[in-house]
Amino acid sequence: MAEGKPVTIYGHVATIRRKGKIAFILLRTFEGEEQVTIKKGLVPEELWSLVEELGREYFIKVQGRLVESKIARLGREIIPESIEVVSPSPPPPIDLYGKVEAEWPTRLKYRYLDIRRPKVKAIFKVRSTLMKAAREFLYKEGFVELNFPIIIATATEGGAELFPVQYFDRQAFLAQSGQLYKQSAVAAFGKVFSIAPSFRAEKSRTRKHLTEFWQIDVEAALVEPKDLMDLQFRLVNYIVEKIIEENEKELELLGVKLEPWQSYQVITYEEALEILRRKGFNIEWGEDFGADEERALVKEFEEPFFIPEFPKDITAFYYMVNRSNPKMAHRIDFMGPGEYGVEWSSGGLREHDPERLTQRIMEAGMRPESFSWYLDMFKYGFPPHGGFGMGVERLLQTLLKLEKIHEAALYPRTPDILEP
Amino acid sequence: MAEGKPVTIYGHVATIRRKGKIAFILLRTFEGEEQVTIKKGLVPEELWSLVEELGREYFIKVQGRLVESKIARLGREIIPESIEVVSPSPPPPIDLYGKVEAEWPTRLKYRYLDIRRPKVKAIFKVRSTLMKAAREFLYKEGFVELNFPIIIATATEGGAELFPVQYFDRQAFLAQSGQLYKQSAVAAFGKVFSIAPSFRAEKSRTRKHLTEFWQIDVEAALVEPKDLMDLQFRLVNYIVEKIIEENEKELELLGVKLEPWQSYQVITYEEALEILRRKGFNIEWGEDFGADEERALVKEFEEPFFIPEFPKDITAFYYMVNRSNPKMAHRIDFMGPGEYGVEWSSGGLREHDPERLTQRIMEAGMRPESFSWYLDMFKYGFPPHGGFGMGVERLLQTLLKLEKIHEAALYPRTPDILEP
Repeated sequence: MAEGKPVTIYGHVATIRRKGKIAFILLRTFEGEEQVTIKKGLVPEELWSLVEELGREYFIKVQGRLVESKIARLGREIIPESIEVVSPSPPPPIDLYGKVEAEWPTRLKYRYLDIRRPKVKAIFKVRSTLMKAAREFLYKEGFVELNFPIIIATATEGGAELFPVQYFDRQAFLAQSGQLYKQSAVAAFGKVFSIAPSFRAEKSRTRKHLTEFWQIDVEAALVEPKDLMDLQFRLVNYIVEKIIEENEKELELLGVKLEPWQSYQVITYEEALEILRRKGFNIEWGEDFGADEERALVKEFEEPFFIPEFPKDITAFYYMVNRSNPKMAHRIDFMGPGEYGVEWSSGGLREHDPERLTQRIMEAGMRPESFSWYLDMFKYGFPPHGGFGMGVERLLQTLLKLEKIHEAALYPRTPDILEP
Repeated sequence: MAEGKPVTIYGHVATIRRKGKIAFILLRTFEGEEQVTIKKGLVPEELWSLVEELGREYFIKVQGRLVESKIARLGREIIPESIEVVSPSPPPPIDLYGKVEAEWPTRLKYRYLDIRRPKVKAIFKVRSTLMKAAREFLYKEGFVELNFPIIIATATEGGAELFPVQYFDRQAFLAQSGQLYKQSAVAAFGKVFSIAPSFRAEKSRTRKHLTEFWQIDVEAALVEPKDLMDLQFRLVNYIVEKIIEENEKELELLGVKLEPWQSYQVITYEEALEILRRKGFNIEWGEDFGADEERALVKEFEEPFFIPEFPKDITAFYYMVNRSNPKMAHRIDFMGPGEYGVEWSSGGLREHDPERLTQRIMEAGMRPESFSWYLDMFKYGFPPHGGFGMGVERLLQTLLKLEKIHEAALYPRTPDILEP
């Protein structure tokens, strides 16, 4: 009994198997798992009887020795000298280790248990790497991290899709993005970013919509469309490389094979229409892509692709109109490819001429007076600039091949889900 | 004219000085500043006349040669071959380079110009380092970054201080912290953190209150009070070291000298009362510290200090009651010292026994039914745990000796400030 490294390990009882005079506890630790092997006769009698009492999700403290084992699946096992129940548990209402996953509403109801499942933990460990890698990349590229207000007084993009907030005795809204604020900051800092929660009061019940999501909001002065496309492609590939590097175990558990992409493609809006019409969609020039169109489109691609211009009238007012083709504006959509593909980001060049901007706001049916501080700032030597907002959950959905975007959020919010 | 490195530089005209046949433009670039020196006769005539037209905050493109200079303040100057006005500017309504700072309401009104001031930029470059360093430290310590919902259905801590949100046809709130959610996650991941916006609908108009602020929310399983204090002290010192390393220029500009602290102090609640009474405060055992008490207290210290226990009744329901002294609970406040000191964080050990927790919720005058998912989760083998929420703006306020916390937010939100 003296051989092996002495260890003290805490964890949840994942499974217990008893075979006559031997018992195996698979312990889920915070880092991974360990096998505890208990042989009747070789351990104190009270330890053997304690094993009889244990059940799934008991949180226990195991002291003993870690020894190598050729038989154990993990290649090692713990021979306990003592086991202590820190917190007991009734049988959990969802099977954390079953072959068949519980239905989503049940998983959600018991989300606090669902997130203990190794596969779910794996998703969020990858998400943690994604967030870290995105910032690392942007810091290296010289971007300054800023935070923009979430509670805003003005309905930025029309207002229909904003959640109202009671701000003391005033009416306010939750920001859909840091759009106006990051533009103000770009004139001071040149390159700025923020990764922050964003809110969209859209009643869409699709596989790609959340009402609350995190966005990688980036803005840079003096950029051309090509710069924005290159930057985003490199950002995504940097994230992919970091995930491969840091989450080998998690990717294996999720059955996902990741590889950086060799290149990206660029297709025009008209080429996208062409593809959709070929697939039977009845879509006219000037229309935006809905969820079905988008899904059909991304399936045609194996590499990420950009659509670098859109008809002016389906772009938000702050996009710059193409000076040499004024029917189009420099909105650039970045699309994740394949079966789990989805629009990763929307961005482009911004209008920095206050008069053209005022015109665009009026064309969009809004009152320039509501945007007075925003319009004013462009009078003062404003640099040409552009940027994008990339959805964290959407990127994760494509990378990890998640059926629903809900799985990319620890506690998702949708029109129907506000709890837990 | 052929000597010097050829350069193309963009920037805002900070100041222009003309002395007879020579003109000096101080250019504020996104990275710092450059001096452009123009000598009549040595540059094309149209360039000399262009200089006459330039004004402050013009955004210009300068092509020329960068040469060393013993006279120039920066030790170098740009001899231009061409200057192009990218975006002109009327005279800015606030003086970005004046000796006397504009009043705060004026600065706020023109915040988009105010943030172009080198001193203000310096604050936010340091803030960017603070955010980066905090995450770097926590990643190194093995914490997983998660994101918790901002829109919540239940008023976590009573409700009086929460902003109501209209969530489609339901009433919801903006979260004050990820408290309940990070606790749920700690049972799965062991060590979790989130740096995210938090909201407090408090009508406090003090130097340390914002209604919207960013919080470093940390939670760990199996910790003792000492671990939480050490972790926070090391976190703050790591941030300080990184700022010293990466923001030398900014600290100089702000006139701030930073040094890691040698150690932290621990004083009991009773010792804090004692200090306050000595300073003339009329405060009884069982009362919490208000803004005035806190300010008086921190001024007495030169090192960060912790108050590691508080009377149970002034702690939130989720704090663990001290089993051997049930009048006290394990709430741990971390205080920044000195003239610009402020409460940096509140945290402590959490109650993980569902029955005691239910009792605490009832004692706080709330209905356990409102917390059903939260209370349920503790039934399932819940590990002992603790954590803290540290205010980003508050920490920055102390480190950079900012008179008002408003200056630590790019676009601050207070009961009176919702715009811009």
